[in-house]
Amino acid sequence: MVKRNRAASSEEEMIARIRRRAGLPASGSIVLGIGDDCAIFRPRGSNEDLLFTTDMLIEGTHFLRAHPPADLGWKALARGLSDIAAMGGEPRFCLLSLAVAPWIGPRWIDAFYRGLLALASREGAPLVGGDLSHADRVMCDILVCGSVPRSQALRRDSARRGDAIYVSGALGGAACRLAQGRPTARPQPRLALGRLLRQKLHATAAMDLSDGISLDLHRLAKASNLSAEITAPPRHRGATLEQALHGGEDYELLFTLPGAARLPPEFAGVPLTRIGTMRRGPAGAVTLDGVPLEPLGYDHFRP
Amino acid sequence: MVKRNRAASSEEEMIARIRRRAGLPASGSIVLGIGDDCAIFRPRGSNEDLLFTTDMLIEGTHFLRAHPPADLGWKALARGLSDIAAMGGEPRFCLLSLAVAPWIGPRWIDAFYRGLLALASREGAPLVGGDLSHADRVMCDILVCGSVPRSQALRRDSARRGDAIYVSGALGGAACRLAQGRPTARPQPRLALGRLLRQKLHATAAMDLSDGISLDLHRLAKASNLSAEITAPPRHRGATLEQALHGGEDYELLFTLPGAARLPPEFAGVPLTRIGTMRRGPAGAVTLDGVPLEPLGYDHFRP
Repeated sequence: MVKRNRAASSEEEMIARIRRRAGLPASGSIVLGIGDDCAIFRPRGSNEDLLFTTDMLIEGTHFLRAHPPADLGWKALARGLSDIAAMGGEPRFCLLSLAVAPWIGPRWIDAFYRGLLALASREGAPLVGGDLSHADRVMCDILVCGSVPRSQALRRDSARRGDAIYVSGALGGAACRLAQGRPTARPQPRLALGRLLRQKLHATAAMDLSDGISLDLHRLAKASNLSAEITAPPRHRGATLEQALHGGEDYELLFTLPGAARLPPEFAGVPLTRIGTMRRGPAGAVTLDGVPLEPLGYDHFRP
Repeated sequence: MVKRNRAASSEEEMIARIRRRAGLPASGSIVLGIGDDCAIFRPRGSNEDLLFTTDMLIEGTHFLRAHPPADLGWKALARGLSDIAAMGGEPRFCLLSLAVAPWIGPRWIDAFYRGLLALASREGAPLVGGDLSHADRVMCDILVCGSVPRSQALRRDSARRGDAIYVSGALGGAACRLAQGRPTARPQPRLALGRLLRQKLHATAAMDLSDGISLDLHRLAKASNLSAEITAPPRHRGATLEQALHGGEDYELLFTLPGAARLPPEFAGVPLTRIGTMRRGPAGAVTLDGVPLEPLGYDHFRP
């Protein structure tokens, strides 16, 4: 446990610290603040809640110069859309802040926007604004807004004891491809699945798998004040168990359903696999086949 | 004119290009897309319109390492709030994406958030989310959401022929202080003035002065398909005329009113000065005392 806490400490503690400082929002229109995939805002008089998420993509941190710019543009938006999917939302619009580096030319910029706008158009998230600047290295930050009917957003803090834990797809593919020097070109945010989870399957909790299931399930369990017992999740072809447990950027969904719920084995070609159960126990503790699983997924601030 | 077009070309052309690519939003909920201080979104069933703006602040581009972090946090948010003010909005919430550099420690981060949250609390813009990452250099991107009653946002494309042109405050102060090696600590977004312009004075157009009036008035005039005639704007104590015309980061408001409108000489201690008139003529052309004024304000992409 001590080691687990240490491993998970840095980014988690930093966010907890910011959340304490930011305080509880004064306004009733803020349904949910810092700590989930999206913030939730309730416009006056509306019967829909709006979801907001931002995600950065930085040269040298998230990608290298050789990365095809059209794939980067796609990925910048896909990361944000994945957060909207995790809450069961419909994408509404996006804004992009982009700082270009000296080595960037007009063709790069065109290709970047081409990739981003292809996904924006497919998923109904028009680009409505943003900011342009320059920097030593390319960096961008996407803001995506989504919507759900009032009070129906899926959250990570609402799993219940006895709920079944599921993942979509197979894990470790992104880490495996990265290790082979060929990062995933165009991740597919699970928007249709997110809507299904909200509308038809009444999932009790959900989040997206961006940092590895060992860390992300720890976060979901901690937010829900429960522990989690799992068996090995489905592995992407060629991925090691380590990559499936701790590798980031799979952008699959992790979700919980009442233990007795029945689920089809797949949805739109994506497998849905039960991997475990939410239990009473130390908040955030995860066991894999009965053995404590350390949250070793991707953490920007691990010492 | 050729020279003017060339000088103004780069960032403007880049934005025009992105706007063309992004296309007209498919959804009726997008009231205004790329090209103004904020995008405007109309939630279903609501009687308010929501305003969205993002602004980056990047080490080496916008500030140096020695800059006090509490002032930086303040400024990151102030830049976004200034865009909300320009459209006459009430701040509602903000999200912050922050990438920290290796030289950053916990005290820096605490001070940064302290500055940001002080302004957020004062102006009613609670921090509800964002993203954390790391990078070679510090960079942050703020998203601010504001609101206005339906259809009442002030825009830059709605000035009319014969309208009087006004500025708040005195210009060139930020450029003057920067030249003296002591950048402005805590810019004050003109939120109360923006609301007054919308509610009581019925301004016909408005925008904030972030890149220098020579460039910003060119943008307002171009968006409104008019030209503008001005005399020298009020200068901040110690600022040169060049600094007042082309210096960025003043965060004052530039606005237009019907020519016959009466305005008090100041509001809440901030002078309001008539500096000219909107005219029929080449869209975007600005003259100062009858002489063409080149849009030499700050442009990230000037060759």
